[in-house]
Amino acid sequence: MIRKKLGQRIKEFRHKLGISQEKFALSINMDRTYYASVENGKRNISINNIEKIANGLGITLEELFKGL
Amino acid sequence: MIRKKLGQRIKEFRHKLGISQEKFALSINMDRTYYASVENGKRNISINNIEKIANGLGITLEELFKGL
Repeated sequence: MIRKKLGQRIKEFRHKLGISQEKFALSINMDRTYYASVENGKRNISINNIEKIANGLGITLEELFKGL
Repeated sequence: MIRKKLGQRIKEFRHKLGISQEKFALSINMDRTYYASVENGKRNISINNIEKIANGLGITLEELFKGL
């Protein structure tokens, strides 16, 4: 399911940055509980929030969706 | 703004298929008014609906987001 795959991919990029869920969520001004549920594939996340996360990760949307 | 760019991109791919908004919306079982507003960049569309559209267009999410 796409939500699971996307959450996994987001998590991988966050790990590359070496920061915690909490720190990352804070850095993009997103509720940490909401953010955690995105990584877990539990949210039908909107394009605005996907963009916010990609920006925080320092990657393009193209890169985020690569292979998905 | 990402919603505008995404809507434009979706529209381009639909044009390549040579079908109307109405026909395309019907083919993916999506309300045509909602679909039209997505192409116009007026909706904060969710990942599930983005995937639905990409599937209908016969492209990957990676391809849909290329260059965005």
